[in-house]
Amino acid sequence: MPRLKLSNRARQTPPSPIRRLAHLAERAKKDGKSVYHLNIGQPDIHSPVEFFDAVRTFSDPVLAYDRSQGNELLCRVWADYMNRCLGLNLSAEQFMVTMGASEALVFLFMTCCDPGDEVIIFDPTYANYIGFAAVAGVTLVPILSDLEHNFALPSYEKIEAQITNRTRAILLCSPNNPTGTVYSPEEIQELLAICEDYNIFLVVDETYREFVYDGLEPFSVLQLAPGSRRVIVVDSLSKRFSLCGARIGCFVTWNEEVLATTLNIAQARLAAPTLEQAASAHMLQTVSDEYLSRVRREFEMRRDVLFQALEQIPGMMAYKPKGAFYSIVQLPVDDAEKFAMFLLSEFALDGKTTFVAPASGFYMQNGRGQNKVRVAYVLESHELEHAVAVLRAGLEAYPGRTE
Amino acid sequence: MPRLKLSNRARQTPPSPIRRLAHLAERAKKDGKSVYHLNIGQPDIHSPVEFFDAVRTFSDPVLAYDRSQGNELLCRVWADYMNRCLGLNLSAEQFMVTMGASEALVFLFMTCCDPGDEVIIFDPTYANYIGFAAVAGVTLVPILSDLEHNFALPSYEKIEAQITNRTRAILLCSPNNPTGTVYSPEEIQELLAICEDYNIFLVVDETYREFVYDGLEPFSVLQLAPGSRRVIVVDSLSKRFSLCGARIGCFVTWNEEVLATTLNIAQARLAAPTLEQAASAHMLQTVSDEYLSRVRREFEMRRDVLFQALEQIPGMMAYKPKGAFYSIVQLPVDDAEKFAMFLLSEFALDGKTTFVAPASGFYMQNGRGQNKVRVAYVLESHELEHAVAVLRAGLEAYPGRTE
Repeated sequence: MPRLKLSNRARQTPPSPIRRLAHLAERAKKDGKSVYHLNIGQPDIHSPVEFFDAVRTFSDPVLAYDRSQGNELLCRVWADYMNRCLGLNLSAEQFMVTMGASEALVFLFMTCCDPGDEVIIFDPTYANYIGFAAVAGVTLVPILSDLEHNFALPSYEKIEAQITNRTRAILLCSPNNPTGTVYSPEEIQELLAICEDYNIFLVVDETYREFVYDGLEPFSVLQLAPGSRRVIVVDSLSKRFSLCGARIGCFVTWNEEVLATTLNIAQARLAAPTLEQAASAHMLQTVSDEYLSRVRREFEMRRDVLFQALEQIPGMMAYKPKGAFYSIVQLPVDDAEKFAMFLLSEFALDGKTTFVAPASGFYMQNGRGQNKVRVAYVLESHELEHAVAVLRAGLEAYPGRTE
Repeated sequence: MPRLKLSNRARQTPPSPIRRLAHLAERAKKDGKSVYHLNIGQPDIHSPVEFFDAVRTFSDPVLAYDRSQGNELLCRVWADYMNRCLGLNLSAEQFMVTMGASEALVFLFMTCCDPGDEVIIFDPTYANYIGFAAVAGVTLVPILSDLEHNFALPSYEKIEAQITNRTRAILLCSPNNPTGTVYSPEEIQELLAICEDYNIFLVVDETYREFVYDGLEPFSVLQLAPGSRRVIVVDSLSKRFSLCGARIGCFVTWNEEVLATTLNIAQARLAAPTLEQAASAHMLQTVSDEYLSRVRREFEMRRDVLFQALEQIPGMMAYKPKGAFYSIVQLPVDDAEKFAMFLLSEFALDGKTTFVAPASGFYMQNGRGQNKVRVAYVLESHELEHAVAVLRAGLEAYPGRTE
């Protein structure tokens, strides 16, 4: 049979740096090793019992389609939740429920950009943005933020220099995945000013909004620009409520045209899952504020434990992040991907090894991040300590160590 | 504030003909009318209790991400299910679980086609294919099948005449939505021959595979071409098990390159919903064959009831379909969309009205289907009879009737 050519865009979609070494982890497990997963933002935190209560008591005998724009009650209670936490005045009509923040971002790329249009992002970036852009035919324009400056946002001038007549939006993940950076209201106000000056959208992925530490308070770009038709917030229940598997996200905006236009795309895929939407609505109405405070304290403690352990590693360099649950960690190796593979395939300490995500996959600019990894501190403290001990011992045993 | 331009592709994505009059139905309900929904393929059949059993007994305290290619058990039992029903020899590795057949089709458009590439479809077509193609930048090339010939597939020569050097695939829905047509193995063999002659993919959406009547047996294109790397089947649990709201679909193929390439796209969106996948796996393992036979008998009876009622309408013309649960019905009106709006907004019989989908939205070729509607016989018999009685009375009262 002659070869059947696949599309260039699909062949150019990079594998996820978070998942592409997964087969090595599976093999390690089959070989009897246990693996500490610091590669993926999958917390071990128990999901709220209120979610499972609603799942168990779902009584409709037909699992029918919900509305394309999202379950009506869920939109309402999500608005209530954000209004309560952030002092906003959102209404249900401004919400579009999506299958995770992922689908929200794909929808927004489709709605705001034609193929070849550009979106400015900051490097390193959440790797899946690269995949969404590839399928949507959108050109991401990366602007470097660097470890030496705690991944602070570049200046107005540096960003301005990258704007062309194809630029449609700036996309920011705040608090940041993969760096853990929390941006100040002033920094985000500056981004908003650029977007106003150049009449482009500001899309902020606030999946980690509540995960801020050291006394910081959750903050949304919506607080800066009430009523703005330029601002679109992407949100998700995945991390906040440890509901990664529910695949419930949304975007929220005051821009009715964006909502109406995206609805046509949303109608083609019919609807997000019914059961998860119903359970999420019940959960948002009934979960106590204490759930989130407890989770936040837990992650803050884990961050401290992680950094105490990391600081024991000679040649390690990292910035102690103030948000989310990731950190970009520079290691004394030339090629962090090879080191990550070494850990999975050739190393174990007491039958255990550690899975970290090579940071190069989070950089769009070639050659960046090659001596760095992304660490997700999603395990409990004593496991984190062990995981870093494995990493440290692995470095000592690694032939490619640079010092 | 200056206007923020949205993308041309989003503005060109048509609203779903199934859902775009939904606001009129909502208003009718608010005005106290009850509405028979024949517009949407949302069956009233109870979902299998085995699905809800698994939902209720889900005991993992963390609702975590599943694998990007789909829950391992679900892939295995879906293969078992198809092997048992169709005498095939599929393995779990050939499956990619998706969020409904919708996501499978978007993935395949992305993987098989670059923007501007062409896919041949048959007009009328499942309207959402038009939406998927719009977001994927794929040009659908429609070839007319007509009511007068029971929507049979066009000849080899007619199809061949539409193939260009941009054609990447033929896409068929079999049994067909919106026409209810069941194609013979010989007709599908002919399509396969064209795809072989021109080295393109054959994608068959078999969402309605088990819904065949008059003694016909379920049939899959996979039976015709075991091992073929050219054939891709899209499948879904939505209709077969009345699980529309679960959003669980898949595609299955012997083409490892398609699976591996699509996996990079699938990884970017992380995974399909965990709970629905686990519940679907349990359901497929435990649901009795009697469930599906009963559902099939029920729809066959409804079809007969629908047609008995339709035949009382003067000037009506329709083909009694042998599969799925739709029919394209020609009515004595010039503009079926106006008539559908009239039914929702201006008409009621004993406080009730009927919602039908204007067929023009299922035709890509302009001006086709304007005097036709798509009817989904998804309600129980006495409701269907009432719904058609409303339609008939509505036609009598409609000022735009053509005879």
